[in-house]
Amino acid sequence: MSQEEGASILNPMIPSDADFSPPTVGIIGAGQLARMMLQAAIPLGVRVRLLAERADDGAALVAPDVTLGRADDPVALAAFVRSCDATTFDHELVDADALAALEATGHGLRPGAGTVALAQDKRRQRQLLGNLGFPVPPHRPVDAPADLLEFGAAYGWPVVAKAGRGGYDGRGVWVLGGPEEAEDLLAQVNPAAVELLVETWVPIERELAVLVARRPAGEVVAYPLVETVQIEGICHEILAPAEVEPRLAAEAEDLALSIATSIESTGVLAVELFQTAEGLVVNELAARPHNSGHWTIEGAATSQFEQHLRAVLDWPLGSTALQAPAVATVNVLGRDAVDPLHRLPAALAVEGVHVHLYGKAARAGRKLGHVTALGQDRVEVRDRAVRAAGLLTGAVPAGSAS
Amino acid sequence: MSQEEGASILNPMIPSDADFSPPTVGIIGAGQLARMMLQAAIPLGVRVRLLAERADDGAALVAPDVTLGRADDPVALAAFVRSCDATTFDHELVDADALAALEATGHGLRPGAGTVALAQDKRRQRQLLGNLGFPVPPHRPVDAPADLLEFGAAYGWPVVAKAGRGGYDGRGVWVLGGPEEAEDLLAQVNPAAVELLVETWVPIERELAVLVARRPAGEVVAYPLVETVQIEGICHEILAPAEVEPRLAAEAEDLALSIATSIESTGVLAVELFQTAEGLVVNELAARPHNSGHWTIEGAATSQFEQHLRAVLDWPLGSTALQAPAVATVNVLGRDAVDPLHRLPAALAVEGVHVHLYGKAARAGRKLGHVTALGQDRVEVRDRAVRAAGLLTGAVPAGSAS
Repeated sequence: MSQEEGASILNPMIPSDADFSPPTVGIIGAGQLARMMLQAAIPLGVRVRLLAERADDGAALVAPDVTLGRADDPVALAAFVRSCDATTFDHELVDADALAALEATGHGLRPGAGTVALAQDKRRQRQLLGNLGFPVPPHRPVDAPADLLEFGAAYGWPVVAKAGRGGYDGRGVWVLGGPEEAEDLLAQVNPAAVELLVETWVPIERELAVLVARRPAGEVVAYPLVETVQIEGICHEILAPAEVEPRLAAEAEDLALSIATSIESTGVLAVELFQTAEGLVVNELAARPHNSGHWTIEGAATSQFEQHLRAVLDWPLGSTALQAPAVATVNVLGRDAVDPLHRLPAALAVEGVHVHLYGKAARAGRKLGHVTALGQDRVEVRDRAVRAAGLLTGAVPAGSAS
Repeated sequence: MSQEEGASILNPMIPSDADFSPPTVGIIGAGQLARMMLQAAIPLGVRVRLLAERADDGAALVAPDVTLGRADDPVALAAFVRSCDATTFDHELVDADALAALEATGHGLRPGAGTVALAQDKRRQRQLLGNLGFPVPPHRPVDAPADLLEFGAAYGWPVVAKAGRGGYDGRGVWVLGGPEEAEDLLAQVNPAAVELLVETWVPIERELAVLVARRPAGEVVAYPLVETVQIEGICHEILAPAEVEPRLAAEAEDLALSIATSIESTGVLAVELFQTAEGLVVNELAARPHNSGHWTIEGAATSQFEQHLRAVLDWPLGSTALQAPAVATVNVLGRDAVDPLHRLPAALAVEGVHVHLYGKAARAGRKLGHVTALGQDRVEVRDRAVRAAGLLTGAVPAGSAS
């Protein structure tokens, strides 16, 4: 399909029905985010094509149109992007320069190569957000060991060192209590190779997140502020809405909207925040649907996955209204080799829970799915979601299902 | 996969994870019902295999596992059913004897061949429901012209003649004002060939429907009673819950539950009802997810499509609770060759509507999709859904979108 045709499909203003065919959205990667985007694409009539590494990737198992290939192979990437009307992302493990080159030749990347590069690189994120006046802790890149030690001496220990690239679920983050721990880390990692970053340790009262979405035409919307419960850097629970003062929620939502507008992102942007005694601090950004937004599938008027597709296609964004006073999402984290699908009937016996399994092989600590519950009361919905998730992992014995 | 393995997969009681693989549910037919079942299967991790007539059938477009073949070809049907752990239906245009033969050799049909035969055959439906004591109008099969004329003379005109098989969306139903109109009909149709049925004309105050679901273990659940708005036999709108006295709603729900239990159906059973001055009358049954239940996707705690899969797999059934005080679903009925997908952006601009497109080529009068809106007020939600559906068909000009 030529660029002109691609453009007309994405433009709701073209009135002719001649030769009309649905737009094809390409997704780079085939994990659970792609899987849930596929689900959201069905009612919209949007065609989705996946670039999957393996035929048994979670999303590839349920997709009608899969291209096998590696996102870090520039030839495969270019051929894939050219075959789609617009391309978006399940993950950020893509070469930003290759994306920029494709974008320069007119291929629609949504979010664009610049936003992906920003999401990939915690050093650039910190620097840009700081320059734009958003609240970030004091920070600096660590190019040589002395940079880290000088920073600790100047701002006081502990400090937090982070790999600028490739960290996730708590990996690539180190809290360093003093110069000795800094020396130990430096003995293990090459600061230049991991693009190390150091920042002050933030005394966190609560971890929060705001999901926003922006379409190329400029429209932006924010979902209600949520609380995320993280254990050793891994998200375990999301509670919506966050139980904070309305003033703080509004401030967080405005902050996230401003970031999306400032960086001109396209699609869903997850803004992870720390609540501290001194106010909000931006933790990091993800320029795609995000674990902190899984509650929106049932808990908001428009799921983050539908919202992302609307934004990618430059279609009007949907309502972000809560569908119940309290929504809880609990992740199903693998324990040993227990397959949660095998325990699904017990979990489904828990009243009114929504189970989402990702089609991934069970492995300890791996995110295999999530459970969402809606209701009137925050404690009650959390209890139900925790129980169903525990039944799926085997943490709760099946006899206690009902 | 052997029967034993199939049985163990369907049995939540087997505790071992060894060699565990997700169950494969076969669906005969690939229309919008199959399409929405596929969507519901993704989060459950249930594999779905389709028997589709064409590769561009609405569900085949979004399915990873499609077998091309005709449901009325006994060889194709048998091979398909044997390849699945359990088989269910998108439509009832299947040879009931072929199904019964497959069932007799141990293949899991859900619903069973007997229920499918009943749903196919309005004469058997009327007879069985009458014999079981459910409220049906006086009726009789018409095997010869005299049967129809005698019935009219005995019960009074008008009468309603119906093709016992193959009618849908108002086709195959004739209201006959007197003997002359009966003669005209008899000149056009061969009563024996269409398995003609005649019944008294029922003065309808309102058309209602109750969706129930039953699993083989015997558990049954009912969704709240809804009102359906039919024009010339075609469903245009569904309003949930029906605005009737609580006593009548409870009576309707009990009636539908009793029918499902009496006939031992598996899966979703739609019970269409007439409200008359004398009380409820059963119109007809559909033994599968049904247009009158599309509102449940967002409007109930468990969508009818997830519920159907749970029931087919003999898993615990889900909550049928309403998610908002008022839910309206409006069908997108084709007008000329306007492709609703082309008008999707304008429809998505209507606040908080859920658009479902079926991937079907546009044709006048064809059901191409539906729109659901949730809210506090019945009139307001209906207005929003009507507006979005109208924008999709072109009945409402795009300028009035916002």
